[in-house]
Amino acid sequence: MAKVDIGKKILNANETYALRNRELLARHKRPCFNIISSPGSGKTTILVRTISDLADRVRIGVIEGDIQTDIDAERIRATRAPAVQINTEGACHLSAAQVNHALEKLPLERLDIVFIENVGNLVCPSAFELGEDGKVVVLSVAEGDDKPVKYPAIFAKSQVLLVNKIDLLAGGAQVDFDLDRVRADARRLNKGIEIFPVSAKTGEGMQNWYDWLAGQVR
Amino acid sequence: MAKVDIGKKILNANETYALRNRELLARHKRPCFNIISSPGSGKTTILVRTISDLADRVRIGVIEGDIQTDIDAERIRATRAPAVQINTEGACHLSAAQVNHALEKLPLERLDIVFIENVGNLVCPSAFELGEDGKVVVLSVAEGDDKPVKYPAIFAKSQVLLVNKIDLLAGGAQVDFDLDRVRADARRLNKGIEIFPVSAKTGEGMQNWYDWLAGQVR
Repeated sequence: MAKVDIGKKILNANETYALRNRELLARHKRPCFNIISSPGSGKTTILVRTISDLADRVRIGVIEGDIQTDIDAERIRATRAPAVQINTEGACHLSAAQVNHALEKLPLERLDIVFIENVGNLVCPSAFELGEDGKVVVLSVAEGDDKPVKYPAIFAKSQVLLVNKIDLLAGGAQVDFDLDRVRADARRLNKGIEIFPVSAKTGEGMQNWYDWLAGQVR
Repeated sequence: MAKVDIGKKILNANETYALRNRELLARHKRPCFNIISSPGSGKTTILVRTISDLADRVRIGVIEGDIQTDIDAERIRATRAPAVQINTEGACHLSAAQVNHALEKLPLERLDIVFIENVGNLVCPSAFELGEDGKVVVLSVAEGDDKPVKYPAIFAKSQVLLVNKIDLLAGGAQVDFDLDRVRADARRLNKGIEIFPVSAKTGEGMQNWYDWLAGQVR
């Protein structure tokens, strides 16, 4: 029997929605980044500070993913940026379909960049494309420097690594964390990954991230 | 048409293995605890210190769950406690079948307590029973005090909450964390949960956890 190559990948439901999201965002020329980390690495705090510090230059909208509560969306709205909350009701990652519905509620024409803050989970969200232009992984120094080795998928797939809470390394160095090890391990998985050590709390290092981000606006 | 109540829950594959594990552990009278947290909350450090500090009183064996690498099992083995590594190869939680195979490799007759260290993930592992007697959730103060509200399932299902890294609250208080809020939110989800604030790094508070644990030995 002859082998038949149908020459076309059949998309599953998530990929179909991801493609729709990608097309919608491209049509509006809105770069979109999917922020992924463990619970409590500082995704929302990074977004709140980024939105406030760039308020005069870059208009940001946010899709907030949480299992339940709208605590994070409320924190974003306090900056006066538009935020749409998705509650996954127990699910461990955002789906492209959920993001599709949320995108309809964002005023894309009045934004420069869209962020999707995924559910706090370093594992599952890495496997689901949402139609984003790139993933941003956040690692808090309190989580330890072995995370790229132990959770490689998200570090391999991300365009940017924000190493957050570097204020905990200052002075009395209450946290043991080898930034050089993280850099080396992340680059071994992903040669081109941009790495910005930051503290969303004190603002240290945030300018490098802002410069990169401003360079993404189309 | 009459309603038929078959009066019997049909077990899925995971539940079937969980039941087998439970029976095996009960036969050996070995209490077993499933430790669950975000990546980097300190599960392995807690286990290493617990094993060392209790070495003369309680014999502990560990099943280590990780996506890849055997870094954690090596850390446990350095204490000379028996450790069996499970690599989930991308999966976000341990299954009862994986634990069943690992239990066969542990010298149960020479142990007092078995710990299962789950994959670092505050969401998915809470949904899969492994045959354990109880779950122990670890929350690092660096993750923030809103986690019981945002990730309720694991706090609702755990017998013990270890609030780890309390050394980061001492002195200059580099981390904002309201322990009373966490206590109240966790108890609202789970009235009987035991809560022990600890630092696996400095040893502070660990004695309360050890006393509880020693009380579990049969």
